[in-house]
Amino acid sequence: MSSIIPKPLAELIEAFGQLPGVGPRTAERYAYYLLKADPSKSAILAEAAANLHEQISTCPKTFALIEAGQKYSSLYTDPRRNKQVVAVVADAFDIVALEKTNSYNGTYHVLGGLLSPIDGVGPDQLRVKELMKRVDDDGVEELILATNASVEGESTALLITQRLGKRPVKLTRLARGLPVGVDLEYADQITLTRALEGRQALI
Amino acid sequence: MSSIIPKPLAELIEAFGQLPGVGPRTAERYAYYLLKADPSKSAILAEAAANLHEQISTCPKTFALIEAGQKYSSLYTDPRRNKQVVAVVADAFDIVALEKTNSYNGTYHVLGGLLSPIDGVGPDQLRVKELMKRVDDDGVEELILATNASVEGESTALLITQRLGKRPVKLTRLARGLPVGVDLEYADQITLTRALEGRQALI
Repeated sequence: MSSIIPKPLAELIEAFGQLPGVGPRTAERYAYYLLKADPSKSAILAEAAANLHEQISTCPKTFALIEAGQKYSSLYTDPRRNKQVVAVVADAFDIVALEKTNSYNGTYHVLGGLLSPIDGVGPDQLRVKELMKRVDDDGVEELILATNASVEGESTALLITQRLGKRPVKLTRLARGLPVGVDLEYADQITLTRALEGRQALI
Repeated sequence: MSSIIPKPLAELIEAFGQLPGVGPRTAERYAYYLLKADPSKSAILAEAAANLHEQISTCPKTFALIEAGQKYSSLYTDPRRNKQVVAVVADAFDIVALEKTNSYNGTYHVLGGLLSPIDGVGPDQLRVKELMKRVDDDGVEELILATNASVEGESTALLITQRLGKRPVKLTRLARGLPVGVDLEYADQITLTRALEGRQALI
C-alpha cells in the first residue's frame, strides 16, 4: 500500500483514524477531501489542531475551559452571575449544554469526572476539596448537582452530600422525568418511576 | 457561545465541520476528544494536515499521486509493470481500489474527472491529450476504461474512443454485471440488463 498512497497522505489518514468513531474508510474520505480542497482548508485545520493544547487552559476557580492568558473563566467573573449558586458538573463540556438553555445565571464547578471505582476514579481524583473551598470562600447558598442520571452520578452526589457535612448549603439536583417530546409509551421504566416520584402540582 | 467555548477550541470545531459529512455535533466530539487526549495526538494531526499539500504532487506521466521529490509514480517506473496496458481512471484515488485487487500489473492514467457539462467539465478539462501522447510514446496496446458505470463514465469512454481515432489500440472497459455476493433479486434492472448482455460462456 505504501507505494500507492503517498506517505504524507497515509499519515493524515492515520491521524484521522484516531478520532472517535472514525474508521479507515471515513479517515480516507476526510484526507482525500482535504487533498482535493483548497490548501487553505488543511492549513486552517493544522493550525487549529496545533494551537489546541497550547492555547487552552482551565480556570483555577471553576475548572471550566479558558483561553491561555485569561485568569478566570468569564462564567465566574461576570458580575451578572450569581456566585452563591454553583452547578456541579462532571465535565467542562457539560457547561456548554447547560449554557445553551439560556436559563441559568449561577456559576459552575467542574469535578473532572464522576466516581467510578471500576475506572479507578475515587474521591481523590475529583475536585471535591476545591468545591468545598469555594463553598466556604464564596458563601455558596445552593449547589445544583448537574450530573448524569447514572450510578456514577448518584454516588458522586452522595459523596458531595457527605463532604458538605453541616454547612448550611441547599443541595439540589436536576429533575429526572420524561424528556420533552418523548411519548410516555416509549419512556423506560426507571425514568417513568422517577417522573412519578417527582410529580408536580398543577394548581 | 464565544464566552463558553474558548476560541482555539471553537476554531478546531469549525475546521472539523468543513470535512464531508461532519455536522456540528460530530465536529464538537472530535475536538473534545483531542482536547482530552494526549497533546501528541493533535500535534500529529496538525503536522499531517500541514504537510499534506506541500509534500504531495502528481506524476507527470500517469498523474497519480506521488511524494514531493519523486519524479514519476512507482506505478509507472516499476519494471514489473506493463507500460503497454493502461487503466484509465477518473480520479487518483480510484487507483487504490484497483491496486487492492492485486490482479492488475499494467499502468494507470488519471483523467482528472469525467465529462460532465453540467459541472463545467468538458474535454479540455480532462487529461486526454496527455493520454494520447502516452499511447504514442509508450506504444500502448490496450486501454482499459476503468470509469464509473454512470452517464459521465459512458460519455468519457466515447470521447476517448473518438480521440484514439485509427490508432491500433485495443479498447476495453470494466465488466458491468452482478456484484459478487449480491442476490439476483436485489440487483437493479439496469445492472441485470448489463449482466445479461455480457453473459459469459461456461464451457
